[in-house]
Order: sequence, then structure tokens, then C-alpha cells
Amino acid sequence: MTNIVLEDMGSFFVGGRDVEVRGRDIERVWVTQDLPDFAYDPNGDFTVEQAYVQYFIPATRVSELPVLLQHGGGLTGASWETTPDGRPGWLQHFLRAGFAVYVIDNVERGRAGWCALDDEWPGRPIVRSWQEAWWLYRIGAAENYDSRTPFPGQRFPITAFDAMNAGHVPRWTSTPPLQVAALKAAIERIGRCVVIGHSQGGDLAQKAVLDMPDHVPAAVFAEPSGLPETIEGLDVDGRSFLFLMGDYLDATPLWVDLTARIRETAAALAARGADAEYLALAEHGITGNSHMLMMDDNSDALAALVQDWILKRV
Amino acid sequence: MTNIVLEDMGSFFVGGRDVEVRGRDIERVWVTQDLPDFAYDPNGDFTVEQAYVQYFIPATRVSELPVLLQHGGGLTGASWETTPDGRPGWLQHFLRAGFAVYVIDNVERGRAGWCALDDEWPGRPIVRSWQEAWWLYRIGAAENYDSRTPFPGQRFPITAFDAMNAGHVPRWTSTPPLQVAALKAAIERIGRCVVIGHSQGGDLAQKAVLDMPDHVPAAVFAEPSGLPETIEGLDVDGRSFLFLMGDYLDATPLWVDLTARIRETAAALAARGADAEYLALAEHGITGNSHMLMMDDNSDALAALVQDWILKRV
Repeated sequence: MTNIVLEDMGSFFVGGRDVEVRGRDIERVWVTQDLPDFAYDPNGDFTVEQAYVQYFIPATRVSELPVLLQHGGGLTGASWETTPDGRPGWLQHFLRAGFAVYVIDNVERGRAGWCALDDEWPGRPIVRSWQEAWWLYRIGAAENYDSRTPFPGQRFPITAFDAMNAGHVPRWTSTPPLQVAALKAAIERIGRCVVIGHSQGGDLAQKAVLDMPDHVPAAVFAEPSGLPETIEGLDVDGRSFLFLMGDYLDATPLWVDLTARIRETAAALAARGADAEYLALAEHGITGNSHMLMMDDNSDALAALVQDWILKRV
Repeated sequence: MTNIVLEDMGSFFVGGRDVEVRGRDIERVWVTQDLPDFAYDPNGDFTVEQAYVQYFIPATRVSELPVLLQHGGGLTGASWETTPDGRPGWLQHFLRAGFAVYVIDNVERGRAGWCALDDEWPGRPIVRSWQEAWWLYRIGAAENYDSRTPFPGQRFPITAFDAMNAGHVPRWTSTPPLQVAALKAAIERIGRCVVIGHSQGGDLAQKAVLDMPDHVPAAVFAEPSGLPETIEGLDVDGRSFLFLMGDYLDATPLWVDLTARIRETAAALAARGADAEYLALAEHGITGNSHMLMMDDNSDALAALVQDWILKRV
């Protein structure tokens, strides 16, 4: 494996807003055994709803445009790193290929933190169980979870299924508008770039980038879990969008329905002048991919496919 | 600035336990506008209390021993990266110096995720306000927060105080034993290493490493917010420990008291045969440092000081 030569690396926080809390009582809390009676004042000013962005800039670059990776729901930027079975992830692939890479932890995920202040976010977070991941990620049929029998030809590394589940974090269902706003703020700070969004991140990415023609000439929506409410009035002429899908798309009504909408959206974008492609890998001889394209056993070949698609367009 | 040449980089999750949830009703939740009525099953198996570790391995190394960075309370591994005013952090310093670096997000922080399941963690999380950060991090006196008047000679980059606050995340007061266990698990996986812990991370690091003589020959406790309950019976003979403190230690009773205990602990470790040093920078002509040593305007010089200390010992 070749070395990764970085000219720079680091991180920043972007977006968010400030909240003032006043009028609450001081609490006595245990912090360490040497600070067992700390006077915790819940009043004050707080920063909430920011996103965290970690970046890596190779010394030699194959494109002026960096890649921005937006994780899926209940996940963080860690999903782009080492695969659950220990292989280099898409982050390392794009760095070795010579792209500057920005990895976001969007609002409430990972290092972005989340809002624990009262009355700011409605509802409570949900968490993905192993069972839900099994069928939702199209690793196998729900009824075959207990026996851990995957779909025939499955490329997700089954022996690392448990390890993959350690990467799940809580998520709110009310935060997507905040996440779209933070993703837009990140793109504005980074400048012109190619955005790659996975799953919920594919939904967020479409909502963030479709009306940013000056910032995002090309984007990849990998297995998006949602589509834009409308594409009317958007300036997509000459811009490039790839909708990338794995296999087993007929496995559940949820994926049958989503796939139909994804195909329709790609066609509607193309009708408005975009270079928009719906690419279901299994229809082109690449079978066995789960929802977790960047973790499957051919993840590096898929990254190379995405890389080629990008370099032909920007 | 010289390039950072990496032979490898990536991440893994370590520690944690599995929780079974059974007997709860299915909920209908909004996930995206295309999945507005998702059947969310709160039952199932879940992985909780794991830690996340991101690592960077330089191609040329100055020491066989990697450095493991353990963040403070209400913070994540991001606190070792770019400083709030945009300078390279201790992570980049140690990489450029030729150390392999492992950065942990410990239990409930950052990419480690946190446990949102009912009845698993007692109590609710607390969050650090700007006001608390101002006095607790010894940037200025509490009564001078509104005017943003820092202590004379303050080295924390005051103009980036707001930016620094974006890095705070919620924390529980009940999780330190879980964090000590996860830190130990991370060290066991990494192998022999030098541990650097800051603030609460200095407390966690002492509790994790003092009884790991085969794994941790040297450790740096930077501004620790707690000390071990006892050092009786620990095998510390010939091992090296640095307690590193900034300035303004007489600013509040909390720091006066903590400092006294830190000094006592260093002396007690030395009395048991350790190479244990209490180093208050201001007593050695380096004045103006806040609690956030890795963010102050001389952060790179302090990283170099720590680096020299390490290389003289391992």
C-alpha cells in the first residue's frame, strides 16, 4: 500500500446557533472523586447545532476539487474510514487517489455533539438495533437474522457485522433541516467541491447541493434514503449527479418504493439538463452489494468507480 | 510546514457490551419525507459503551512507542486537532515529530456514541456553558466573563473563545468507570504506548494506566481533574509520569485544592520509585497558560516539551 502524503490535516466546526439558558437552579454534581460536589450551573450560553468537519489535504492532488463525505443516519464520519473487517475505507482510497477529503460529522452525530438542553429539540432519539441494520442494510432477510444467513452472494463482510454495529449512534428524527443547513455551511466554507452522501446523507446531500450550482458541480448520492421535495426551479443544467445503488433492491417494500423514486428523480434531473445517472450496480454485472457500499468486500473497486466518474466530469 | 507522510491511518471501536431490549411497542417515526411512517422497532440487540479510536501511523517513526491522546470532560478527540484559532494541534505536532498517534473518543463522546436506551445510564447529561468554560479553564475570573477580560498575560487565543465552545459535547457524571475500562481496552489493543490525558482525561488516564506497568512505561497527565484513589500496591518503579500544569493555579479554590493533590500524588509516586515529576510551567518561566494547554498560543512549544520529555524516557 502506498503512503498517504498530507500537506495539511485538521478540523473545524461550522454552523450552529447560540442558546441562552437562564433562571435555573445550580446543581451539585459528581465530576471526579476529587471534585465530588461540583457546583454545576445549568444557566449560561451554549453553542448547539454545529457540524464538525475533519479534513486531509494530500501534497499532490489529482483534482482541484475536494471531496466531501456525508455519512448516513445513525452513523458518523467513522463509516468512511477502516471497514468493520479492517480494510481501508473510502476516505483512505480518495486520499491515496489524490483528492483532498473533508469528512463531516453532521449535527447531533459524532464529534459535532448534540443538544442536551431542555426544550430545544422535540422528541427523543432513536437507535438502530442489530436486527434493524440486518434487514434495512439489505444484508439478509429479517427472518434470517437469528441464523445470520445473508442474501446469496452477499458482499458485506458478515463476520464483521457485530463490529459494524459499534459504529451506530443515536439520532433524532427532527434534525434533518438542521443537518441540511450545516452541510450547506460546510460547503460554503470549503468552496467548490464534489459531495458524496450515503443513505440519509444522500438525502441530506440532495437537499443541500441541488440549489448550490456555483459550489457543487457534481455529487454522488449513494443509496439515498430520501429525495428532494421538488426539483422545479433548480439550476441543474450541465451539472453531474450519480445515484449509486447496490443489489437486492427488491428485498423489501421500503427499498422497492425508494428505488422507484430514486430512478424517477434521476430521470427528472436529466430532463432538466443535468448529467444525471441512475446506476444500480447489479444491473451492470456487479452483484452482491448491500446498502453499505463503502464496507462491502468490493468497497475499494466501488470507490475507484466513483473516482473515475468524478474525474470524467470535473 | 513539512508534509505528514502516513504509512497507514484508520479507526476502530473497542470495548463496550451488548444490551437486549425486548417487550416494547413498535413506534411509527418520520425518517425522511420519503419514509414518513417508518416502523421503528425499539426492541433488539444494541452495542453500547464502546470507545472509538482513530489512528495515524507515520512512515518514518522517531519512537517504537505510539502516543495515545485522551481528551478531557465534555470534549472529544477533536480537541487535539486544529486549535480554535486555526493552528495545528498536538495531533499534527506528534505526527510531524514522527510518533504514531492514536486519538480516542471515549465512551459517550464523539464518534463513540452514547447510550440512548432506557434505564441503562442513571441521570441525565450535563453541558458546559461558555461561562463555566471561562473560569474553569482559567481563561479569566468568573466576574470578568461579560467583559471578556482575561487574566493578564493569558495565552489562550481569546478571539477564538466562541469557536472553542463549539467543541463541547454533553457528558454524564456516571460514566467514568466505563471510560477507564474502555481506555484500558484501547491500550491493550494498541500495545505498549505512551498515554497523554488532559483534564478529565488526565484523571481517566491515571486510573487506567497506573496498574498497567507492562503496557505504559510513561504517561503525561496534563491538568488532570482527578487523582487515583490510591497508589498503594501499584508497580510504578522505574516508570515515568509527568504532571503538567499551566498558570493561574491560585485563581479559584477548585484549582488550589486540585493542584495540591496533584503535587502530593506526584510526590507519592516518586516515593514509590517512579520517575514522577510535577511541572507547573509558570514556576519555570513559562507563564500565561490556561487549562487548555493544547490550544494556547504556545501549544506547539508545549508539545515539543512533552515530546522531549517522552524521548528522554522511552
